[in-house]
Amino acid sequence: MPATDKYNTRAGAINSLLCVGLDSDYEKLPERFQILENPQFEFNKWIIDETAEFAAGFKINMAFYEARGEKGFSEIKLTMEYLIEKYSDIFTICDAKRADIGSTNKGYVEAIFDFMGFDAVTLHPYLGREALDPFLKRTDKISIVLCRTSNPGAAEFQDLESDGKPLWQIVAEKVDRQWNTSGNCMLVVGATYPEELATVRKIAPGMTLLVPGVGAQGGSVEEAIKAGLDDQKKGLIINSSRSIIFSKDPKEEARKLRDEINVYR
Amino acid sequence: MPATDKYNTRAGAINSLLCVGLDSDYEKLPERFQILENPQFEFNKWIIDETAEFAAGFKINMAFYEARGEKGFSEIKLTMEYLIEKYSDIFTICDAKRADIGSTNKGYVEAIFDFMGFDAVTLHPYLGREALDPFLKRTDKISIVLCRTSNPGAAEFQDLESDGKPLWQIVAEKVDRQWNTSGNCMLVVGATYPEELATVRKIAPGMTLLVPGVGAQGGSVEEAIKAGLDDQKKGLIINSSRSIIFSKDPKEEARKLRDEINVYR
Repeated sequence: MPATDKYNTRAGAINSLLCVGLDSDYEKLPERFQILENPQFEFNKWIIDETAEFAAGFKINMAFYEARGEKGFSEIKLTMEYLIEKYSDIFTICDAKRADIGSTNKGYVEAIFDFMGFDAVTLHPYLGREALDPFLKRTDKISIVLCRTSNPGAAEFQDLESDGKPLWQIVAEKVDRQWNTSGNCMLVVGATYPEELATVRKIAPGMTLLVPGVGAQGGSVEEAIKAGLDDQKKGLIINSSRSIIFSKDPKEEARKLRDEINVYR
Repeated sequence: MPATDKYNTRAGAINSLLCVGLDSDYEKLPERFQILENPQFEFNKWIIDETAEFAAGFKINMAFYEARGEKGFSEIKLTMEYLIEKYSDIFTICDAKRADIGSTNKGYVEAIFDFMGFDAVTLHPYLGREALDPFLKRTDKISIVLCRTSNPGAAEFQDLESDGKPLWQIVAEKVDRQWNTSGNCMLVVGATYPEELATVRKIAPGMTLLVPGVGAQGGSVEEAIKAGLDDQKKGLIINSSRSIIFSKDPKEEARKLRDEINVYR
């Protein structure tokens, strides 16, 4: 089956486009978790159990774990083992934003897809398709390429125009038409840039888009959904991290966001 | 003292622009190391002791360690502890090619600069200066930004022209004139592209350039040195990894490359 089927099947089964981001910064964890032997894993386990019924995906950002060295790495591994054992139908994204040259990427491919068992990884486009071949040839896994990032300063290089088109648009076209020959690519487009999101949807009508930036970063759910849905009213992975996991009631926040997304579908 | 002083002082003291890349892929290690409890660390320790007298820097590419999960992470940590204890005057580069949005980068900053103790890190430019601020504001450490990468397919996005200038050239200009206000930036330019290297040298006459791609990747030492030296006959970090560490005699290979570099200075 195509690698995108796992996400689409889950999203359809629970009628949700929500991805919960496990940005489980140790410093921000409630004290009852900080005192445990595996604080990030135990926190993640709690968040996963609370929010799974509304989650089509879970996304783990490596930075919050690498900060703790090998300990953080083992907490990701424990989290992935738990997800694979108890929630094997939920799509998992390693938000690692990696990209090295050619064969060097094999190390990241092994770590992320094989050792940890993620379904997908986020990648920088700067080195080009040739460099990312070790990721792209894994047709059983998803390569999610940064296109228009959600940060305020994203324009510095991404808006540079070549032949009248900004770089982010050229990235979207190349990934859609040249990189995605095995149907295993997605694109990252921030909810903080709904106009760009609408343009990417036009460029790549059939591609699934990972949309971070709603909630704490200020992106509007309504604008993101209206700009990004495909003609099947799908094709989006709406990620929220801090606004859910560090709220008073993560389950209720996840339910609310899932419902808010569905209002605009 | 400026963060670049550590490299310049070491390079001057031993009259060498050589950086030895510890791309210590477990699969490629001699069997006498593979059977040890910490194979990558023990191999690195041997390479470091053999080559240190010719090395102005050591560069560790994270991919070859992350492939082994938390075990690989602890092998980097052991290697860095050894370098800091025994060779504290040698410049250390974490070739991690990271870049996330704003505050998320704090995790990588903590992991690479504080937990592991590297002097420098390599970074993707795609998200812009604003996103990389957590790295750039560490004026005690060096941010090495990817400009023209050494891989065959580097041109796909890096050669796109905006206002008559290719993207790699715009990256070089922005980093030199806008990002490097604290004198803690360097650029990556592959030895496989000597013409681009010469142009970057003109754009950024005072900047130190990390030059991978000699040896196994086919870049010419002569061309790279002639294209990249600054007017003090310095300003380059010439990295070689596989051709040294997996040779029959790493010490002799390091000496030869150090000497070859100096022939053209």
